[in-house]
Amino acid sequence: MEQDRPLDALNNSRNKRVILELKNGKQFAGKLKAFDIHINTVLEDTEELENNQVKRKIGTSFIRGDTIVLIAVD
Amino acid sequence: MEQDRPLDALNNSRNKRVILELKNGKQFAGKLKAFDIHINTVLEDTEELENNQVKRKIGTSFIRGDTIVLIAVD
Amino acid sequence: MEQDRPLDALNNSRNKRVILELKNGKQFAGKLKAFDIHINTVLEDTEELENNQVKRKIGTSFIRGDTIVLIAVD
Amino acid sequence: MEQDRPLDALNNSRNKRVILELKNGKQFAGKLKAFDIHINTVLEDTEELENNQVKRKIGTSFIRGDTIVLIAVD
Amino acid sequence: MEQDRPLDALNNSRNKRVILELKNGKQFAGKLKAFDIHINTVLEDTEELENNQVKRKIGTSFIRGDTIVLIAVD
Amino acid sequence: MEQDRPLDALNNSRNKRVILELKNGKQFAGKLKAFDIHINTVLEDTEELENNQVKRKIGTSFIRGDTIVLIAVD
Amino acid sequence: MEQDRPLDALNNSRNKRVILELKNGKQFAGKLKAFDIHINTVLEDTEELENNQVKRKIGTSFIRGDTIVLIAVD
Repeated sequence: MEQDRPLDALNNSRNKRVILELKNGKQFAGKLKAFDIHINTVLEDTEELENNQVKRKIGTSFIRGDTIVLIAVD
Repeated sequence: MEQDRPLDALNNSRNKRVILELKNGKQFAGKLKAFDIHINTVLEDTEELENNQVKRKIGTSFIRGDTIVLIAVD
Repeated sequence: MEQDRPLDALNNSRNKRVILELKNGKQFAGKLKAFDIHINTVLEDTEELENNQVKRKIGTSFIRGDTIVLIAVD
Repeated sequence: MEQDRPLDALNNSRNKRVILELKNGKQFAGKLKAFDIHINTVLEDTEELENNQVKRKIGTSFIRGDTIVLIAVD
Repeated sequence: MEQDRPLDALNNSRNKRVILELKNGKQFAGKLKAFDIHINTVLEDTEELENNQVKRKIGTSFIRGDTIVLIAVD
Repeated sequence: MEQDRPLDALNNSRNKRVILELKNGKQFAGKLKAFDIHINTVLEDTEELENNQVKRKIGTSFIRGDTIVLIAVD
Repeated sequence: MEQDRPLDALNNSRNKRVILELKNGKQFAGKLKAFDIHINTVLEDTEELENNQVKRKIGTSFIRGDTIVLIAVD
């Protein structure tokens, strides 16, 4: 898999499950539906995780890019 | 539902109830009336939530985009 | 009331009383006299509120937009 | 007094005493000599205030706009 | 090795192991696959480190540039 | 002394001693050698101050503008 | 030494040892190899300092400009 630019890595993960870690320490997993250059992100079937357990389910979510630390893409 | 760009997910939620989680930990629910590219958002019939309970009602509210962590759109 | 863009909601509130919640947790109420795209805001007859009580009065105030979390506009 | 834009309120206060509240909780009073669109501000006869008392005097000061929460302009 | 611009140092480290230190105090090591001018970064075989020990493995990761303090490139 | 723009106040202080207060609470004094529109600043004969005492001397220093709260210019 | 602009001071320090103080309180010393207008910085022979002692050595490092408070350039 070639990835010249960081957004390519996100592009390769469209419609796949990713895990987001946020600046406030929260973790969200879901199917990556959309993102933009600000890393604003839309997840489907979003789950908030705590210690690798599902804490709650929140359907489709829009997550503002500037709150994101890391996206685990596989 | 197709969502190529994150703002499409918000657009699909106009006039529907959404829940916002802010950087200060507060949660607000309301009918999504407007938003812009900064994710500045206007909610109608805004309710502040605490532990999924309505804590107070504040009518129409303008919420500055850079305070938003997540918008649950369905 | 139509509000296609978030700033329309503020525009509809010119010369009306609004309540601002800031990132530092403070609340200010006053008559909305002016705002710009940064949400820099001028209030007249500004009152700092604490637990819905008037804590002090500070006349006309300029409030920097990037400190604002929420503006309750009605 | 007409104020269509927030900076007009500051403009009306040139050479008058204003009080600045900063994000670090400090308060400074002084004669408003200059400001720009970033709300970078120059005060003359600057006084740091604590509980409405003068804590120290620091002559002319340049205050960076992004540290400002509120400017009481009258 | 000539490095006129900071990004050259990152460019010289493509496909090599780097260690990232983030503003939240976390450390991640991995093979540098991509970066952009915002220092958004993609690592392969990402490992979270704690006291120089591998705490967990998270495959390919996208790390938002504005959370990065330092990248040790050799 | 006329000061129409805030940077004029800094310009009038070139080669004079100024005191900088930073967001992290530290104070630095020194001769103002250079600054730019971001308020990035170069001081010569820089002294870190604590309770108005010289805590340490650090020669010429470059101070990033976005860390500055206030510059006492006389 | 003339320094009309702050970056000139950094330019004069290329290939010399500088000390960086970061917003997270850490200090790094090393030979300044590169920097850009964001003050993104590359150090060679980087040493993390604690109480003026070398705490660890980390070779070549890229340090993101927005984490820097001060660069002692001589």
